[in-house]
Amino acid sequence: MSLRRISILGVGLLGGSAGLACRSRLSGCEIIGYGHRTQTLESALRLGAITSAATDPRLAVEGADLILLCTPVARLAPLLTEIAAGLKPGAVVTDVGSSKRTVVEAGERMLPIHAHFVGSHPMAGSEKRGVEFARADLFENALCLITPTDHTSPQALKEVDEFWQTLGMRITHLSPAEHDRRLAEVSHLPHALAAAMVSMADRESLDLAGKGFIDLTRIASGDGGLWRDILLDNRDNVLGSIDKLRAVLAELETLISRGDSIALKDWLDSAAARRAEMVERRMM
Amino acid sequence: MSLRRISILGVGLLGGSAGLACRSRLSGCEIIGYGHRTQTLESALRLGAITSAATDPRLAVEGADLILLCTPVARLAPLLTEIAAGLKPGAVVTDVGSSKRTVVEAGERMLPIHAHFVGSHPMAGSEKRGVEFARADLFENALCLITPTDHTSPQALKEVDEFWQTLGMRITHLSPAEHDRRLAEVSHLPHALAAAMVSMADRESLDLAGKGFIDLTRIASGDGGLWRDILLDNRDNVLGSIDKLRAVLAELETLISRGDSIALKDWLDSAAARRAEMVERRMM
Repeated sequence: MSLRRISILGVGLLGGSAGLACRSRLSGCEIIGYGHRTQTLESALRLGAITSAATDPRLAVEGADLILLCTPVARLAPLLTEIAAGLKPGAVVTDVGSSKRTVVEAGERMLPIHAHFVGSHPMAGSEKRGVEFARADLFENALCLITPTDHTSPQALKEVDEFWQTLGMRITHLSPAEHDRRLAEVSHLPHALAAAMVSMADRESLDLAGKGFIDLTRIASGDGGLWRDILLDNRDNVLGSIDKLRAVLAELETLISRGDSIALKDWLDSAAARRAEMVERRMM
Repeated sequence: MSLRRISILGVGLLGGSAGLACRSRLSGCEIIGYGHRTQTLESALRLGAITSAATDPRLAVEGADLILLCTPVARLAPLLTEIAAGLKPGAVVTDVGSSKRTVVEAGERMLPIHAHFVGSHPMAGSEKRGVEFARADLFENALCLITPTDHTSPQALKEVDEFWQTLGMRITHLSPAEHDRRLAEVSHLPHALAAAMVSMADRESLDLAGKGFIDLTRIASGDGGLWRDILLDNRDNVLGSIDKLRAVLAELETLISRGDSIALKDWLDSAAARRAEMVERRMM
């Protein structure tokens, strides 16, 4: 790969970690950071996550081979408009958003003909926020979902694949629609559900919770604004998943009310087995 | 405390860990283990979790000061019948079950007048099973819920409190009814929900799940038979919690369908704050 200049727009946990990873794995590559708060940019410079800073997104992308959008989901479309005129011919733009249909559609519509958009969703992060928590190894061995469409440039796709692989990630391709449908089930609804579990119990009950509940609700610590954006951006799929969950709860309710001891054990055993298989597949 | 002989009925993860903890913290105390599989008893002896073994529960409790019932919830009542005639005057019987009304009622009804039952629920464990995973420090710094009633002997309660404190646990008293109501919300339903989340996603979606989903569903790896017993034993409260969850899901659904950006962020932020407070309280 011959990336000589990378722009990172939004230098929080993900953007900062991408910067640190690029610095350690792409020698000689310039990393321009953009953020609307100068304090964040100063921290990113001090931590070595970027090599220079810009407070204007259009200036930040000038001459860049690869532009990485690391802002919250709701900020992606406005940002694409702001940078469009600054992109050099052949520039490749990608993002790290948790929902993909909207941003991919916006990227393909708003970028000039000489630049290319490819959607990415690196499955890495933590409930912590801010460049102070950035780590060069955040992406290592994690999965990156990349969402090409019929309009995606094969060359740009290859470059984005290689970029995330250079950062240590495993790659999977799927369409933006399939991404959003599947992620609603294994990420977006689970997040909302963790929040629901915390919301429905009073303080006295929460204080009786064990380690299992702490693990179960860890993702409820995420930033409300970021998750609100994701749930609303992917609302049709999230609402569909709520319906699906309601049907599963009704099934569980029937097994419990009937005292159907055998079927209830089967249901629980089968979930345990599915989870064990899932964990085993990712060890391979 | 002057415990000279303790009987542990059921030497799996919890019983075995209690045995190891007693061996290291109650010097000179005999630990009699009972189990229906001789192989398990041999392992427990070899690992030093018990000092002698018995395959008849009634013989196992003879002369014991404290009897710890560590079998699955559904086996507790039959076991109480089997040991009743073998208990010495002043013997104190307690258990480690995750639901408390049934076992406490059975203990108070079935034991002879010269023996005492006190319900315990040490909030320790793991999704692993078996004496091979037993650890002397399993109970350290964890919470033990103890469920006295109007019929509980104050002296027996004091002995049970001190026993778990000797094993390093923090103690909370609450009634069996309050225990079962609160635990349905922060343990029993969450377990079923983790299983539901795994059940509703197909294999392809599960393979796209990130660390958050792995954490969220960890408790779904528990033993199906054990959890079936708990869900059925506490069925009224579990069904009540499912209703409560359904109401919270309906609220969430409304916020998402309306695209009520401000209220949805507030709802998510408030859950994150409640969880942060919960975690902070337990650090104190």
